Amino acid sequence: MSATTRRRFLQATVALTTATIGAPAAMASGARPAGGAAAPRAPGAPPSRYGAPSPFEAAVSRVGFVSMPGAPASGASRTPLEQLEGTITPTSLHFERHHSGVPEIDPSAHRLVIRGRVNRPLSFRVDDLKRYPLVSRQHFLECSGNSAALVAPVAVEQTCGEIHGLVSGSEWTGIPLRTLLGEAGLAPGARWLVCEGADAGRMNRSVPLAKAMNDGMIALYQNGERLRPENGYPLRLLLPGWEGNIQVKWLREITLTSEPAMTREETSKYTDLRPDGIADQFSFAMGVKSVITHPAAGLAMAGPGWYAIKGLAWSGAGAIRGVEVSVDGGRSWRSAQLDGVVLDRFLTRFRFDWEWQGQESVILSRATDSAGRVQPSRPAWLAEHGPSFNYHCNAIQAWRISRSGKVGNTYVEA
Amino acid sequence: MSATTRRRFLQATVALTTATIGAPAAMASGARPAGGAAAPRAPGAPPSRYGAPSPFEAAVSRVGFVSMPGAPASGASRTPLEQLEGTITPTSLHFERHHSGVPEIDPSAHRLVIRGRVNRPLSFRVDDLKRYPLVSRQHFLECSGNSAALVAPVAVEQTCGEIHGLVSGSEWTGIPLRTLLGEAGLAPGARWLVCEGADAGRMNRSVPLAKAMNDGMIALYQNGERLRPENGYPLRLLLPGWEGNIQVKWLREITLTSEPAMTREETSKYTDLRPDGIADQFSFAMGVKSVITHPAAGLAMAGPGWYAIKGLAWSGAGAIRGVEVSVDGGRSWRSAQLDGVVLDRFLTRFRFDWEWQGQESVILSRATDSAGRVQPSRPAWLAEHGPSFNYHCNAIQAWRISRSGKVGNTYVEA
Repeated sequence: MSATTRRRFLQATVALTTATIGAPAAMASGARPAGGAAAPRAPGAPPSRYGAPSPFEAAVSRVGFVSMPGAPASGASRTPLEQLEGTITPTSLHFERHHSGVPEIDPSAHRLVIRGRVNRPLSFRVDDLKRYPLVSRQHFLECSGNSAALVAPVAVEQTCGEIHGLVSGSEWTGIPLRTLLGEAGLAPGARWLVCEGADAGRMNRSVPLAKAMNDGMIALYQNGERLRPENGYPLRLLLPGWEGNIQVKWLREITLTSEPAMTREETSKYTDLRPDGIADQFSFAMGVKSVITHPAAGLAMAGPGWYAIKGLAWSGAGAIRGVEVSVDGGRSWRSAQLDGVVLDRFLTRFRFDWEWQGQESVILSRATDSAGRVQPSRPAWLAEHGPSFNYHCNAIQAWRISRSGKVGNTYVEA
Repeated sequence: MSATTRRRFLQATVALTTATIGAPAAMASGARPAGGAAAPRAPGAPPSRYGAPSPFEAAVSRVGFVSMPGAPASGASRTPLEQLEGTITPTSLHFERHHSGVPEIDPSAHRLVIRGRVNRPLSFRVDDLKRYPLVSRQHFLECSGNSAALVAPVAVEQTCGEIHGLVSGSEWTGIPLRTLLGEAGLAPGARWLVCEGADAGRMNRSVPLAKAMNDGMIALYQNGERLRPENGYPLRLLLPGWEGNIQVKWLREITLTSEPAMTREETSKYTDLRPDGIADQFSFAMGVKSVITHPAAGLAMAGPGWYAIKGLAWSGAGAIRGVEVSVDGGRSWRSAQLDGVVLDRFLTRFRFDWEWQGQESVILSRATDSAGRVQPSRPAWLAEHGPSFNYHCNAIQAWRISRSGKVGNTYVEA
């Protein structure tokens, strides 16, 4: 931000701290400020085998739990975006979407089978797979059902995480799919991979061969350690930038075929119904998207003053090129700052400093990606996709800030 | 790697999988491979508030616990480097070094005080600090006592993590120190910051003003969530590339002074004794360094064949420019592949494929950084620093692989 803005921001923030300014003044007489008084005299806890958050952060958890009627294991939980910072999502808070719950799989009994239109069907032990040359990449993962609440005719009263928390960012490490397909050897007519999970529902999806050969990965590690059970332990499919459902967890079998398998998850579900009544069977890549995570629904303003607006942006088509922020309901837009190194198909943190003077305000963010695509307004998105479809919603989110400082979900016309 | 190398690697790896190749062959008759048989029929667990590793990974924990005689809380634990992948260390496995244990601090009672040679002494509540403009950066953190075992006259029989696991990598989010110092206003003669923690020992260190103003940070978040207690909750000092001890945890007070405070931690400890008997009081930046994490001490080879040698490299002076690997005890060196995006003062993952034919072998890695510095051999490091000093050891690690496949620590002459 400019020196001027910075100065004004700091003046406002210093005012914030005056409530406790007495402590330092008292220090001249040898008195200790509150921080000192709170410091213990007795030694604390020794090192631990596996760390955990502070008990004072116990309220920070996954949110937006849903489960299907009569099938509690078929459900979802979301990342509490408004509680987090940076671009790496804590693995323990990565969103979940299970169709048959989380199976407990013994890696010594698990196998990955490659069969169908291949020269040599193969079965791999997990320990064998861990010996392969691996690659590490930071990528976002987003459920195609994320942000579906924006299709509702009236803005729902939910938090940022409850509405948009079906997206998370991780460093994934695994084997390039082309390596294993090269071992099996592609037979004539091999154009699709039908990938099946080891969950009770045997969830399966069809993957075009070109995507698998380009950057598909069999992921074994997430954020440094082995995959968590809810993310597919002992191994999952990773297809950078594509919808979460096709990145099959607990992967057990890959069958090479000449045509897609028309599975349940690509016919009755995860198809995009167009306004003309015809459904697009496949819409793999996620759109260009952004959301302000602070201030956002679920948070409250602490009174007039300067605020660090921040949020996340991502695109299934590549890297984020820019994010614009509006603090006047979309009438005017200014460029936000992109924080740190911007990576391809990963979360990008954007920041924008704003002085809120206590008036009712509507704030929005709009992302542009390296393919030149611009995040659409909600009216524009609805006009293109119609109200009877709610997958792949990348419409602009508007937050309303009331005079009392309450932040909530709202819709704007433009 | 080259197409030729790749092909030979894959041939060798296919051989690895023949033990289970029977399953796919049987599939033609409709039989299921082991992977299928292991898949459950009943729904699994529902979504959870805060995830945890698979019970099958329970053995993966911090290692190398040490505590000081009579003071169990004054100790350390290390990251199990040979068990992990990628560059982000799971926060629960980040190394620990505590001088008075881990205090349990209530963030609502904690204060950060800035006093001394400033125009306005200030006391900040944690909630106020969270409102500031933040930045997110991925940086390594290394204890200056890391790898001290290499100074021992005889190679110790410890694992890679036990010897080198006082280094970890995280995405840190916090407030640039220059922002807060700008609010307090520097008074004449302010050249050092004496930073004190809220642990029982009030551990404190002196920081040159130039470093604080350049890239010093008050870190509030680690890998997306609030700092863990063992990493300084509710806030810690972060000084990218410098030794861990000076990056004060549980930070409670910053006093601007004209001279360093000559604290215990920069006089009787964390000073570098030279061969001539004179000690350098300050040696802040960590050296250029690398270590092979696989194959490494604590692991065993599964028999002759192609292996993906992998490791980590980092430097306090900037980015890693290259890593060379030797598989013949240091007689010849070849360039390893640097994986993904190489970041300034962060861990870089290097990879090198090697066919082990079952002979006794000694493997080493040697890093070069963007400042042109090359990681020294152990003899060269000892010649420069002498045997009576064991901080900042960045000597090359050699691993010996026996004919039986056992991997252990060893020393080489060159």
